[in-house]
Amino acid sequence: MESIARLDPDRRRRTGVPEVVYAEGKLPEHTLELIARLREADPDGPALATRCPEAVLSRAADFFVGEEVTVDPLGRTVVVGALPRPRGEVTVLAAGTSDLPVAHECLTTLAVLGVRGRLIADVGVAGLHRLLGVLPELEGVACAVVIAGMEGALPSVVAGLVDVPLVAVPSPVGYGVGAGGVVAAAAMLSSCSPGVAVMNIGNGFGAAVHAARIARRAARADGADGGAAVQEARHG
Amino acid sequence: MESIARLDPDRRRRTGVPEVVYAEGKLPEHTLELIARLREADPDGPALATRCPEAVLSRAADFFVGEEVTVDPLGRTVVVGALPRPRGEVTVLAAGTSDLPVAHECLTTLAVLGVRGRLIADVGVAGLHRLLGVLPELEGVACAVVIAGMEGALPSVVAGLVDVPLVAVPSPVGYGVGAGGVVAAAAMLSSCSPGVAVMNIGNGFGAAVHAARIARRAARADGADGGAAVQEARHG
Amino acid sequence: MESIARLDPDRRRRTGVPEVVYAEGKLPEHTLELIARLREADPDGPALATRCPEAVLSRAADFFVGEEVTVDPLGRTVVVGALPRPRGEVTVLAAGTSDLPVAHECLTTLAVLGVRGRLIADVGVAGLHRLLGVLPELEGVACAVVIAGMEGALPSVVAGLVDVPLVAVPSPVGYGVGAGGVVAAAAMLSSCSPGVAVMNIGNGFGAAVHAARIARRAARADGADGGAAVQEARHG
Amino acid sequence: MESIARLDPDRRRRTGVPEVVYAEGKLPEHTLELIARLREADPDGPALATRCPEAVLSRAADFFVGEEVTVDPLGRTVVVGALPRPRGEVTVLAAGTSDLPVAHECLTTLAVLGVRGRLIADVGVAGLHRLLGVLPELEGVACAVVIAGMEGALPSVVAGLVDVPLVAVPSPVGYGVGAGGVVAAAAMLSSCSPGVAVMNIGNGFGAAVHAARIARRAARADGADGGAAVQEARHG
Amino acid sequence: MESIARLDPDRRRRTGVPEVVYAEGKLPEHTLELIARLREADPDGPALATRCPEAVLSRAADFFVGEEVTVDPLGRTVVVGALPRPRGEVTVLAAGTSDLPVAHECLTTLAVLGVRGRLIADVGVAGLHRLLGVLPELEGVACAVVIAGMEGALPSVVAGLVDVPLVAVPSPVGYGVGAGGVVAAAAMLSSCSPGVAVMNIGNGFGAAVHAARIARRAARADGADGGAAVQEARHG
Amino acid sequence: MESIARLDPDRRRRTGVPEVVYAEGKLPEHTLELIARLREADPDGPALATRCPEAVLSRAADFFVGEEVTVDPLGRTVVVGALPRPRGEVTVLAAGTSDLPVAHECLTTLAVLGVRGRLIADVGVAGLHRLLGVLPELEGVACAVVIAGMEGALPSVVAGLVDVPLVAVPSPVGYGVGAGGVVAAAAMLSSCSPGVAVMNIGNGFGAAVHAARIARRAARADGADGGAAVQEARHG
Amino acid sequence: MESIARLDPDRRRRTGVPEVVYAEGKLPEHTLELIARLREADPDGPALATRCPEAVLSRAADFFVGEEVTVDPLGRTVVVGALPRPRGEVTVLAAGTSDLPVAHECLTTLAVLGVRGRLIADVGVAGLHRLLGVLPELEGVACAVVIAGMEGALPSVVAGLVDVPLVAVPSPVGYGVGAGGVVAAAAMLSSCSPGVAVMNIGNGFGAAVHAARIARRAARADGADGGAAVQEARHG
Amino acid sequence: MESIARLDPDRRRRTGVPEVVYAEGKLPEHTLELIARLREADPDGPALATRCPEAVLSRAADFFVGEEVTVDPLGRTVVVGALPRPRGEVTVLAAGTSDLPVAHECLTTLAVLGVRGRLIADVGVAGLHRLLGVLPELEGVACAVVIAGMEGALPSVVAGLVDVPLVAVPSPVGYGVGAGGVVAAAAMLSSCSPGVAVMNIGNGFGAAVHAARIARRAARADGADGGAAVQEARHG
Repeated sequence: MESIARLDPDRRRRTGVPEVVYAEGKLPEHTLELIARLREADPDGPALATRCPEAVLSRAADFFVGEEVTVDPLGRTVVVGALPRPRGEVTVLAAGTSDLPVAHECLTTLAVLGVRGRLIADVGVAGLHRLLGVLPELEGVACAVVIAGMEGALPSVVAGLVDVPLVAVPSPVGYGVGAGGVVAAAAMLSSCSPGVAVMNIGNGFGAAVHAARIARRAARADGADGGAAVQEARHG
Repeated sequence: MESIARLDPDRRRRTGVPEVVYAEGKLPEHTLELIARLREADPDGPALATRCPEAVLSRAADFFVGEEVTVDPLGRTVVVGALPRPRGEVTVLAAGTSDLPVAHECLTTLAVLGVRGRLIADVGVAGLHRLLGVLPELEGVACAVVIAGMEGALPSVVAGLVDVPLVAVPSPVGYGVGAGGVVAAAAMLSSCSPGVAVMNIGNGFGAAVHAARIARRAARADGADGGAAVQEARHG
Repeated sequence: MESIARLDPDRRRRTGVPEVVYAEGKLPEHTLELIARLREADPDGPALATRCPEAVLSRAADFFVGEEVTVDPLGRTVVVGALPRPRGEVTVLAAGTSDLPVAHECLTTLAVLGVRGRLIADVGVAGLHRLLGVLPELEGVACAVVIAGMEGALPSVVAGLVDVPLVAVPSPVGYGVGAGGVVAAAAMLSSCSPGVAVMNIGNGFGAAVHAARIARRAARADGADGGAAVQEARHG
Repeated sequence: MESIARLDPDRRRRTGVPEVVYAEGKLPEHTLELIARLREADPDGPALATRCPEAVLSRAADFFVGEEVTVDPLGRTVVVGALPRPRGEVTVLAAGTSDLPVAHECLTTLAVLGVRGRLIADVGVAGLHRLLGVLPELEGVACAVVIAGMEGALPSVVAGLVDVPLVAVPSPVGYGVGAGGVVAAAAMLSSCSPGVAVMNIGNGFGAAVHAARIARRAARADGADGGAAVQEARHG
Repeated sequence: MESIARLDPDRRRRTGVPEVVYAEGKLPEHTLELIARLREADPDGPALATRCPEAVLSRAADFFVGEEVTVDPLGRTVVVGALPRPRGEVTVLAAGTSDLPVAHECLTTLAVLGVRGRLIADVGVAGLHRLLGVLPELEGVACAVVIAGMEGALPSVVAGLVDVPLVAVPSPVGYGVGAGGVVAAAAMLSSCSPGVAVMNIGNGFGAAVHAARIARRAARADGADGGAAVQEARHG
Repeated sequence: MESIARLDPDRRRRTGVPEVVYAEGKLPEHTLELIARLREADPDGPALATRCPEAVLSRAADFFVGEEVTVDPLGRTVVVGALPRPRGEVTVLAAGTSDLPVAHECLTTLAVLGVRGRLIADVGVAGLHRLLGVLPELEGVACAVVIAGMEGALPSVVAGLVDVPLVAVPSPVGYGVGAGGVVAAAAMLSSCSPGVAVMNIGNGFGAAVHAARIARRAARADGADGGAAVQEARHG
Repeated sequence: MESIARLDPDRRRRTGVPEVVYAEGKLPEHTLELIARLREADPDGPALATRCPEAVLSRAADFFVGEEVTVDPLGRTVVVGALPRPRGEVTVLAAGTSDLPVAHECLTTLAVLGVRGRLIADVGVAGLHRLLGVLPELEGVACAVVIAGMEGALPSVVAGLVDVPLVAVPSPVGYGVGAGGVVAAAAMLSSCSPGVAVMNIGNGFGAAVHAARIARRAARADGADGGAAVQEARHG
Repeated sequence: MESIARLDPDRRRRTGVPEVVYAEGKLPEHTLELIARLREADPDGPALATRCPEAVLSRAADFFVGEEVTVDPLGRTVVVGALPRPRGEVTVLAAGTSDLPVAHECLTTLAVLGVRGRLIADVGVAGLHRLLGVLPELEGVACAVVIAGMEGALPSVVAGLVDVPLVAVPSPVGYGVGAGGVVAAAAMLSSCSPGVAVMNIGNGFGAAVHAARIARRAARADGADGGAAVQEARHG
């Protein structure tokens, strides 16, 4: 199968995001092989695979001997290669602990894209005081990713409280009419608070890409961070 | 048409709710005629028609000369006959001013069922402080009806803050994927806050019935209000 | 995972309902751990976990040695800690024997919330005489929970016969166009009998919360039951 | 347009049902012209047009001078030609007065097909005693057509009470999640009472065809009715 | 579980159809137990269980020692008790061999209800000549059940060719947009041929009930068959 | 508005199909203006506008004085400029007379694209003999376009009978669950006859483009027709 | 109605976005009145009303005599008050001329929020060269808003070509299965190009809010623009 | 089961396509048996089975000893018998490597139908240059099959660039709102590029049938290929 894959190593330069292996529905050996080929074709940064089945997660370390391999079973990601020095920061809010797999996929992708991600979890609207308590931490961040399942109300509440570009990610958590996350997705699109931009259900990866583009721009403009990065690189 | 309608005048005794004319899709003259027949068959309380078209609203006063007629163009209701003395109270929250038609249908029905309704409007989640400011008014009420369109998040937030039986009514306010209120309805059913019971889209009437059954029970048990009612009735 | 959960021990005081563990999609050890932490943080009442997988149900008794542990395999619930003395009563109707899992989740939750639940099962509309035979038992109850799958007609029929606050719970029983309970849910929302309030599919837990809020209010107002509770407590 | 229509005058012999003009979406003059052509091509029985717009209903009498023309504004049908002597009988139940347009389309079609139709209206499940009161009239009928909108529960209840072939017709009466009759249709298909056969929403015409095929068969077998028909024809 | 089941042994007398065990989602031992209880409570005819899982099918013969047990693995039915002498006949058409499970459930139910069922299989519209070849066999039958998956076109074609009451059953055969049979169901409801009455997806049982009611009526009226039945019974 | 439209006059050369004005939702004057600009930018063939509202249809002749203007009120098209000499042929089947608007849009587009279209109308599956009678006319045609609404069964039947590339177009004719043509579209996609390719609902234009590409290829290869075209052109 | 509206004048400070009047479904006089009240309560910037019906658009200028009033009939917006000096820039791409209403709502909102918007229209994927020709203009922009109807493919193509935060807005342009924009919305959420964030159908307003938050941040960080603004202000 | 299958060996002559075994949902032994019977009844070409489960794929070679058996595990097809000499050619484009199963089913079917298929894989719109690089290969082909999942944008882009009959096949690749391929299917039907004809999700088989009918026609007309075929046959 892999012999007819057309790698797109130029994608990182063109869009700021390297090609990534979406492992769902692929044979484990194909996924591992594709990671290896990406690693070779585009050595400027680590290679990332998302939605990895158990067989990929457990075999990755042995497959890539001599490489820095980071496996996250909760977020189902494999990263091969050293993470870049982060510039810029994104805050990731998760409504409940069941939304953590999506949050982890998002945080790992941010790290691969060279952006620092900070997680604030279990701040769903059923206990509003938890959210109100962490609001100050959102002041001035470049971008906030807000993950929620069930009725997907968290982005609406956050977007009405702070002046931050906000990306909402419906998580597939729910049951009955809300099973699979479709209700959360539709509710986020219908938000009464303006400016909520929505990703596909469970798409922590895509949210990270959107957020990283915003955060890197802000960091670049700022300059301070970039300077620090240069300094750190010197001592690295 | 009306000649083959089978009136159900016993419904008030059996279920606590009189038969009501649902005017949507009926010819105005049929609606008016049915109100008159209900008034005659069940004189113990006022007759109510909901979802009245303009032609019913504007002709009702002339049609029922000599009767006490209350017309609400916003809620699209017509009441013929004197309202009963209210016992018990229900609070009605509306997320936005566009939800007022549903709120009005609910308030009028509460009045017809002999329950006092109090409206708190424009407390949607996009400006949370407005809701937090009115929370104390919800303490100890017998039942709260919460109306919202778009993403329908308000009931989730309220249900996480107070210990009150809560009936959520999705309103048909919204557009795009949320047009017609279907997203609000699904979101309310998927609420992460426990205990949110949901009515059909725009069903302020049904919410009032459910809430009135709760409030009357509470008022009856309480006794004080009942006693007052007896006294007032004496002087009435 | 659990280290970043923000427990909400104040929820019981604020909303009358303690925080509860929704075990679906959680690792069994996380669920057991969360129950333990809830038990510790909120010792005023028992801790409840719903939608428990087999691994939680079978391990709960051993995990909580020295505690009163109640496991219900049909309703898939685990309760740790002594149940409170019940005050107030709710009647739970189930259309068929396939609806019993939802009914059991509801009954267990009622017990945890300190409300007596009475089950009347297998009274679906295909054999109406079964329902008519039990109707007298519904007279004067504080609230009725009505569970049905397939076409979800039972709540409509009940609501046309008695003067009781009625909560309808669609069960996921059905096949073909009615698979998963979506048709039952939509039918209940579309009920021609006024006052039917609807929960999410299979949400026996949420129905119990709504019903308990109504029943406790009625019992409190009544006083008698409370008095009895005090007496019993003396001898307890 | 009509010049390229291929009339199917043999349909009556082949299927027991003549070709019929479905007027929705056709220009009034085309509908009237098609009726005339059908009348000519298939003179063995009256010509029927269903779903007629106002312009057809009001012009039909003048267009077919010298013919027996029956116009039903409620059922939106036009019949040109004398109705056949009825043989066999079908009972049509309508849940509410808003379902009468569907019932009328059904009754007119039965008449055109030579079957006697009897209407029992306003027997919805919100007032069950009304239905129970008319049940004896269903004993022994050849076929029952049951029309309901909203949650579409009536066929389930009826099918659990009598031994009669039952055709359910969802009517487009409803709002919110039940708008247009889709919920009624799905609920009828999901009926917990066995043997409920369902037609498309509002398809009173199709229900009449199905019922007439059953009723004519029964009448034919019976013989008595046929004999009477011959007698009556003698004195006619 | 079974202790709270309310058997409805009167159902056979009331509706012409005995209570039946729907085994899907029930524990095998409960299904077998319920069959036994039905057998006892209603000994006038055999007991039927539909949608039986493998465990019921394989254990039925041993469980009901001394009884006549008929197990159909394709139709997933178990019948306990002797089948009644058939009166009247129904023709069952299946579009493809994949539709046979539904056809078998229908045929077994017909047998249990005392009606002879004749199967004509693999006559789908992709090879029309196969259908045209068997058309003569449909002449004069009391009722035809037509089963099809995918686009569900077969009932439309049959209904345009013969004068027979026709019950269409969508089968869950299909994939892509037609997965699960929903498209077949909707297409059958939308049939351009009048008189197609539709059952839920895969509901061969319900189709048999509707068809049997029609066929028994026809057979009863006819008399000949009944007389033969009496004769046969004498020699039986 | 039109000032920022970017005309694509190269489209005819690139894809074989000129840019076309989709008039739905455009102001009449904008549509007429765009036709004029297309006419000027791409004078090699006539300019076409589809889905024209009444105001465009009635004003087109006066707007384009001195041009050959063809207006089709049924198909809602306007063609400005002389039609090319046709090469190749496509047969268009329409199930009923209500499908003629879609058929006309298809036929006009074929003419604009230089392909001869032949219409065979009113051959729906409810009267199969009509279809069987015209089958011989389909032998050897380059492509068949088959239009049907309601249950959309016609393409399945045709595709099982002839060896012709077949394009199915669902028409928006239908009501109830089949309203708008969605059921016809899904049924056509689910066809049990292989090789049915489907267009969007009502997209007679797109079907003509697909069919014309096939027919022109066949005609070109054939050569005979092309030669005739040259000859005719000489005498033209 | 307006007397119970709770204005939220603090919203601009809290979220960077002033409260805005959504005029759809409101009476024209209420909309005008609400604009006036917003203008008074929050004089720091212009007041905006979106989705204005004709009656608001035509009466706005007369209603707000002495104010700077900007009415956009295509985008259906009314702005009362002087627009702020723009800082930062957002590029708005529209696939077709039918998407211009959504683009205009977006551009007006950007202007109200103090951000410069640049429109690139009619660059849909059916003529890819048009898009490729304008790509260089996207280099280095702070944020791109991409509007498309029908199959909504444009954002996927753009996101694979440039390194820019991208907000996709489905427009309600389409017909058949794509009517109303639901397919475009779902396709955008399903984009194979990472980082596409999606707004509700037709929500040009929300896209502008999201984009403005990004662009203002970038402009602020940059500083140059801010300085220029101060300078310009001096000479203004 | 197979004993009642009615083979249609005449189908190849009638429609140009032999009967084919759709193995999904059939028992492996039935599939193998049906292949054998088809092979016998219609020996003019190879027998094909699609959607074969593992058990058929692995047992086919042993079952058909002495026959030429071709098994494709990726496309899940089994072919028994020698492939015909190909005439005409079809190009198959696949957006990503996950779409290869559909592409393989298509390619195998083309081979069985005697048409040469050429695969161009991994040319999705996220990296447009890959597609632009292979465009010249599409010039002059008889038909192109374009397969894509997720948002299904590839056919729109291709159809705007080349003058080739284009068949789009949605693949079931996607997640969240795009799970199962329904969004890709709807997007392809809604294409803004004219002439995109769509197959059911994953229906590589049907696409091959449609494409083969086009390609064979073109090849036949052309003659050259046919001549070559004759020559090759001489030397074969």
